[in-house]
This record gives sequence, C-alpha cells and structure tokens, in this order.
Amino acid sequence: MAKITVVKNILDANDRIAEENRKLFDREKIYVLNLMSSPGAGKTSLVERTIVSLQNKYKIGVIEGDIQGSADAERIASLGVPVVQINTGGACHIDGNMIREALPGLDLAQIDLLIAENVGNLVCPAEFKVGENTKVMVLSTPEGSDKPAKYPLMFQQSEAMIINKIDLLPYVDFDMAQAKRDALTLNPKLKIFEVSCTSSVGLKDWFDWLSGRIESFQST
Amino acid sequence: MAKITVVKNILDANDRIAEENRKLFDREKIYVLNLMSSPGAGKTSLVERTIVSLQNKYKIGVIEGDIQGSADAERIASLGVPVVQINTGGACHIDGNMIREALPGLDLAQIDLLIAENVGNLVCPAEFKVGENTKVMVLSTPEGSDKPAKYPLMFQQSEAMIINKIDLLPYVDFDMAQAKRDALTLNPKLKIFEVSCTSSVGLKDWFDWLSGRIESFQST
Repeated sequence: MAKITVVKNILDANDRIAEENRKLFDREKIYVLNLMSSPGAGKTSLVERTIVSLQNKYKIGVIEGDIQGSADAERIASLGVPVVQINTGGACHIDGNMIREALPGLDLAQIDLLIAENVGNLVCPAEFKVGENTKVMVLSTPEGSDKPAKYPLMFQQSEAMIINKIDLLPYVDFDMAQAKRDALTLNPKLKIFEVSCTSSVGLKDWFDWLSGRIESFQST
Repeated sequence: MAKITVVKNILDANDRIAEENRKLFDREKIYVLNLMSSPGAGKTSLVERTIVSLQNKYKIGVIEGDIQGSADAERIASLGVPVVQINTGGACHIDGNMIREALPGLDLAQIDLLIAENVGNLVCPAEFKVGENTKVMVLSTPEGSDKPAKYPLMFQQSEAMIINKIDLLPYVDFDMAQAKRDALTLNPKLKIFEVSCTSSVGLKDWFDWLSGRIESFQST
C-alpha cells in the first residue's frame, strides 16, 4: 500500500510540473513532440530525417534523453540545430522536471518545434508527461509484431506510431497486419506510418502529418 | 531526498526477498538464469532453442515475465516444459517477490534449471535481483552497437551477453568490434556469444557454457 501511494505522489508531482512546462510552451508558441521507443528502434535517425526535411520551414530544437553519454546530441548538433543533452543518471525515462531543468539551455524564442527524444524504453516513458503536445512512438520491424499486445500502455498513450525499418521486412518475422490490428484495438485513433529511415520510404507522410499538427497549433 | 530514500528501501526489501529465493533454490539444487534484453531482441526464441537442446540433459522450468498476456508462456508450454506466467500489470521488470509468488506453480523437485525471462527492458530489470545464479542479457544487432555505452548497468550486471540476430548483419548498421569493446570496457569479465536463433549458428557455445555453469553448481 505504501509503495502504491508513493508512486502515485511522484506521478501527481510530475503531472503538475509537466503542466507548468506546457503553459510556458504555449506562451512561447512551441509545439513539443515526446518521441518514445525501445532501444535501437530508430528514434535518433527519425529526428535527423525530420530536422533535414523541416528545418527550412520551422525553427527546431532538440532535447536528448539518455542514461549517460552525449553521442545522440552530437549527431543532432552536427545538423546545426540547438540541442540539450539530459543524462538521467540511471533513470529509465525523462520526466517533467528534467525537461524544465533543460530549458535554460535553449533560446525558446528561436524554437517552433521542440523534439524531446526519450530514453529507449517501451514501458516507463509512457507513464510520464513532460509538457508535450503529442506523444509519438517508433516500433521497428525486428522487434516483432507482438509488441502492442505485450506493451499496451505505450500504444494507448501515443497519438501516432511510426513503424520503422520496413526495409528489413524481407529478413525478419514481422506480421504488419497483426501489429496494426493489435495497436488499433488498444487505440482506435492511432495514426500509423510505415517508414524506413534508411531508404526514406514513407517519411513524407510523417513530415506532412507533423507539419499539419504544428500549423494547427500555431494558428490557435 | 524523500524519493531517493524510498527507492533505496524498495531495493533493500527486494534484495532480502531475492536472497530468500536463492536459499530455497540452493536447497532444491536449482540453477536460476535471469534473462534480460530490450523488447524483441529474441529472449523467447533463445529460451525455446535452449530447452530443445538441453531438455534431455536437465529438467527445465520457465517463468515468463510480461506486462500482460501469456503468448510467450504458451510458446514455451508447447515444448512440454512447466511454465508459469507472471503478469506485472504495468511494472517494467520482474522482482524477487514476483518470483516467490510464482513458485507454488512449479514442482521444484522436478527442476534443475529455472529460466526467468524478464520483461523486455534494457534499463530497469538490471536493478532487481530475483534470486538468480546468473544474469544473462541478449543484445540484437538491429538495436545498434551503441547500446553498451548508452545503457551501461545492464552490461555491468550481466555475466554473459548473447549478441543475437547475427544473420541480419548484412542488412543493419552494427559494428561488432565497437559493441564488444564497449561492453568489455564496462565489464571486463563479460562472456560474449555471437548467435542467430533463426539459423542456430553460434548456439552450441552458449549451450556448452550454460551446461558447464549448471554442472559446476550441482557439484558444489
């Protein structure tokens, strides 16, 4: 009982901080994308492709969440966009407070789209809001099509699922119909994209969808 | 500060229960393998291959840890070995107490090797002992060779790392030398196997190593 109460308090406190972040982002007109997946599903590659495609249209900033190291932040910085590295020091997700503490490292007036790349984890990040407009998840084909049924919360919490590494479909055991059916059963409104960040196939639909979301947010 | 204290208390309590599990397993002469990885790295396939190879030599039992569902337990049960499904109901790892509660579902006198397949997660399971003799992790090539540097605790806590899906090496960006070097930097005693559960290449070395561990345990 005590343990359950503690967890609830932590989540309540996080929700409050996430809401404060959200108010700040609204004032600054910053659209925030919380990007989640298992380790190695291709989040950083997707962020790179998204920056290259949209950086002439929007001012983009990135927050990289990793347990340790700054390899992903260095990849992103090489594209010429501002990036802050969060090192969680062991924690399995980023939370509202980590995002708040990262913000002084960014010039918010110079950002239209802020991408927060979460720690690679298909479980815990889905429980913690950071002040995002949208949660988007990446599922890669080598992980298998049984993942929605086994890790439901992530699929329920996400507005969109990007099925990445479809270039590997000939070599892996991935039932696309099963993955989509199970994900849509959990979340009937889930928007699904099939892409390869290696070959670029399918990415235009993702860029268009994200642009639509940003423009709809900016016009409110 | 309060949060840190709570986490420590939970881990202390878990260590105590894991130690009680360990004493029970020692009395019953059961070698326990805690198997961990990211989602979809191939834990269940490895368990299946291991059962098929070793079930004439050892009496094997399995505990399947999943957030929900019983698909993996059904796969294992079809091989004719006793299996108990733990549903963590959202929790991102299995712990000592979950294992203790699963044990009445198994006839311990009929088990030499107990395999506990953890929830797919490269972070949290490494923090929780369950009463195992050994922790073994699976890293799959599509996840990328940067994973040791980014998720260090899992590599530090494991006695062996099984690099799975080497049949996909021609199609993915995985630097084998980097993965091994970074993992060995974190854990110089780490035993490394390169395998494919699809083609079976490399698996014999894993079966031999595990058999050696079981026999060494039984003879003490």
